[in-house]
Amino acid sequence: MKLAIIQTKPLFGEIKLNISEAINMMESVSADLFILPELFNTGYNFIDSSEAASLAEAIDGVTYKNIHQLAFKKKCYIVYGFAEKSDKLYNSCALVGPDGLIGVYRKIHLFNSEKLFFAPGNLGFPVFELPFGKVGLMICFDWIYPEAARTLTLKGAQLIAHPSNLVLPYCPDAMITRCLENKIFTATVDRVGEENRGSVNLKFIGQSEIVSPKGEVLFRLSKDNPEVRVADIDLKLADNKYSTERNHLLHDRQPEFYL
Amino acid sequence: MKLAIIQTKPLFGEIKLNISEAINMMESVSADLFILPELFNTGYNFIDSSEAASLAEAIDGVTYKNIHQLAFKKKCYIVYGFAEKSDKLYNSCALVGPDGLIGVYRKIHLFNSEKLFFAPGNLGFPVFELPFGKVGLMICFDWIYPEAARTLTLKGAQLIAHPSNLVLPYCPDAMITRCLENKIFTATVDRVGEENRGSVNLKFIGQSEIVSPKGEVLFRLSKDNPEVRVADIDLKLADNKYSTERNHLLHDRQPEFYL
Repeated sequence: MKLAIIQTKPLFGEIKLNISEAINMMESVSADLFILPELFNTGYNFIDSSEAASLAEAIDGVTYKNIHQLAFKKKCYIVYGFAEKSDKLYNSCALVGPDGLIGVYRKIHLFNSEKLFFAPGNLGFPVFELPFGKVGLMICFDWIYPEAARTLTLKGAQLIAHPSNLVLPYCPDAMITRCLENKIFTATVDRVGEENRGSVNLKFIGQSEIVSPKGEVLFRLSKDNPEVRVADIDLKLADNKYSTERNHLLHDRQPEFYL
Repeated sequence: MKLAIIQTKPLFGEIKLNISEAINMMESVSADLFILPELFNTGYNFIDSSEAASLAEAIDGVTYKNIHQLAFKKKCYIVYGFAEKSDKLYNSCALVGPDGLIGVYRKIHLFNSEKLFFAPGNLGFPVFELPFGKVGLMICFDWIYPEAARTLTLKGAQLIAHPSNLVLPYCPDAMITRCLENKIFTATVDRVGEENRGSVNLKFIGQSEIVSPKGEVLFRLSKDNPEVRVADIDLKLADNKYSTERNHLLHDRQPEFYL
């Protein structure tokens, strides 16, 4: 299958512009699955919760409508991060296909100030069976919890779609460990640029990447530039959980000894 | 506390020689805790289970006696890997102090051909409170299971002593992830050299290392040479589980969503 990662450079609060730039980037290539960053439409660095609320949308809002239109036109699937307005505000990502919404993941492990704006996700870690394979969802800081990628693997994910807004340097290398320990593909899709708002200046590290079940970094994008990259990958490779001829990484787990 | 890692180059089957070389290396420095590699006394590449049995020892065997003698003399603690003869054979490591045996860990996740020689560990992942801090034990391939280091962390380990015989290249970098996700110290103590026995030739990768709770590699030893290195580390740094001011890595876990 063809997997496109779309490393964007959103402008804070400019939802319409950010959607149209992301759509232009997606229009430039063909793929079965496109992944956009966390909060790709709003930007990240909210000053307070009322600002976050003012930029959040219901799952069927304007961002969804634009993304679904493209998924319908290109007959493709798209994962994108957005601020979700529901009973509470969530830092969510949606998976949309040609026929509409397939599912939503609400970020479970919120990072730093996100705790001031969002409620922690209440829907668990989802895996969806698509025509080309099984895709699990997690968002950004979920990377530091090995339980997130492990849970998605145990639920059958062959690929983890991982929209991100990374400000710490550790995630790109840590995803190699996540792939080795689970023998899955991961696609970490980050943004670039800075957001200087209130007293908080954040610089996002880019370096979006796809990593294979063998821990090979298929590519890692730049630190500073918006970029689109397509990989042709065989998701069935993630079904082989043998790390050596005698070590099936999942069958060899010994949960009776784990806390 | 002072932590010494002892990267040895054992000769297969030469228990007496391997013990005496390890003791010479330990005699050359002062430390509170010394860590030796997995199976440091016997070597690793057994041809069959009867050979493994012939080289295995009860926990109070000759290796223990020699190690305890040194721990008594130097008033220090020592972790060392050995083939343990008990109801079955185990790939074990022992923690010994001035007053004798403190505890044993039997390797839970056996690697490749080890499954032909050893039974999987049946004692769980142990943590011991020593005068200078809390030390957990795991062995070599346990690194690929995030549940091992996580369990030791949840049991209070500030430092994981990690005797190893590494033949794959991934572990040294993966331990950085283990430290970041748990905010602990790890000391991976590998061996060097080759063992060409039967039809199996194994080259061990060295690169023993100590990694801090911030994921800093304090040092990484060479790939080919026996080496002793001592680090002066403050194990209390591992008690700070805050990754950001609002993210306590253990309190923020959401086990209701983990498989």
